[in-house]
Amino acid sequence: LALILDNKGFEICEVYARQIADAKAIIKLTYEAEATDSLDFRGSKAGLFIVAVKDDAIEHVAKQLLLPAGATVVHTSGTLSLAALGKALPNTGPSDTKTGVFYPLMTFSKSREVNFRQVPLCLEAIDQATEDVLVAIAKKLSDIVYVISSEERLSLHMAAVFSCNFTNHLWALAKEITIAKKLDFSILHPIIAETTRKALAATHPANGQTGPAIRKDKRTLERHIALLEDQPDIQLVYQTLTESIQEWH
Amino acid sequence: LALILDNKGFEICEVYARQIADAKAIIKLTYEAEATDSLDFRGSKAGLFIVAVKDDAIEHVAKQLLLPAGATVVHTSGTLSLAALGKALPNTGPSDTKTGVFYPLMTFSKSREVNFRQVPLCLEAIDQATEDVLVAIAKKLSDIVYVISSEERLSLHMAAVFSCNFTNHLWALAKEITIAKKLDFSILHPIIAETTRKALAATHPANGQTGPAIRKDKRTLERHIALLEDQPDIQLVYQTLTESIQEWH
Repeated sequence: LALILDNKGFEICEVYARQIADAKAIIKLTYEAEATDSLDFRGSKAGLFIVAVKDDAIEHVAKQLLLPAGATVVHTSGTLSLAALGKALPNTGPSDTKTGVFYPLMTFSKSREVNFRQVPLCLEAIDQATEDVLVAIAKKLSDIVYVISSEERLSLHMAAVFSCNFTNHLWALAKEITIAKKLDFSILHPIIAETTRKALAATHPANGQTGPAIRKDKRTLERHIALLEDQPDIQLVYQTLTESIQEWH
Repeated sequence: LALILDNKGFEICEVYARQIADAKAIIKLTYEAEATDSLDFRGSKAGLFIVAVKDDAIEHVAKQLLLPAGATVVHTSGTLSLAALGKALPNTGPSDTKTGVFYPLMTFSKSREVNFRQVPLCLEAIDQATEDVLVAIAKKLSDIVYVISSEERLSLHMAAVFSCNFTNHLWALAKEITIAKKLDFSILHPIIAETTRKALAATHPANGQTGPAIRKDKRTLERHIALLEDQPDIQLVYQTLTESIQEWH
């Protein structure tokens, strides 16, 4: 996020990490900024503070944040509410601190670059003026900007878990199945690509559902279940998803 | 399949359906052929008979097939063994009938065209000469041709169920989650597209696994589970896949 902001001409003032070496490593990548392992930013000239840490650590970090007057602080989490961030900030801080959320709905890996213009940014702010600022910043970074509530964001994040984390795990299981038979996983690449294209083109992905579960093809289902006898954990995934498909259709 | 074969210059002699009107409807689409509701092909000049019916119906159809001398008959199923097809053919038929499998590893919907050159064709044949014929035909239709055994094919088909049917169902559930909150499902399109690109580029999809399950982010997991309290069927899918991810990592 810092790299993207820097690229768009925003000035990065400080980069914080618990270990100052980590902050320095990030800064070294492209931009000028001060590395720090202190959360005392009372002397900072920054206007926006982005708490981009693990969901579990946001409130812990926020509790120690010492901010200058007139600052806005946002987190980048899909699950933590806006109110929780406000509650975590120290009572002793400036009374004009504004809070917000700047949640990029995307899966990030260190080894992969993504086109940030295609990353949906889900924003929320404590007041209209703060929202306007966040929207203006977000639109410089991405073509897809939404203002959504904490409640909506939590549902959206959960939908993303189904859409991204769970599907990826199913592909990992499929890879394991091919490895066990010394088959080439790339045989499955075309069907994975087509399934994705089809779901994204559909009014509702359910309209394009195929396979033995929706056909109630008992014999095939029994054959697959038998194949998985030695892998009860994968077998349970197979049965649960098959029943869910049959319940929904 | 008939349309694709016709396009590549193969002559379609007869098209069978239980209801002759259905056979006529298929033929009307592009090519010249005889529509029939009889499985008596003893007078046919065709060399290859393709039984492209539901898995459950293949043996039922094969049992009634009356073939000319020197014919090859194949099915297009991912699960039925080559031996089962041979066993189902009537004992009274010509002794030189050859059997094979011509399995396109793809998800097909009537409303979607797919680029058949990118459809993996998984072949199997009763002898080398038959295999050579099937491979030659397959290569005219697709760039991806594999010869694999019945046992391998069954595993591959099951891997395709995980890769295609189950992932599509997860996207359907994600869509339902967005509908319930009146959110736009297209917010999730970029993460779905990126998850797919990432998995297809990875040595193993497991390497790119992200999300609360692999992070063991208990608070987020609990929040999601609580959100699904009124939908126990989706909640069960959530729990099963979360546990499977944690077991595998």
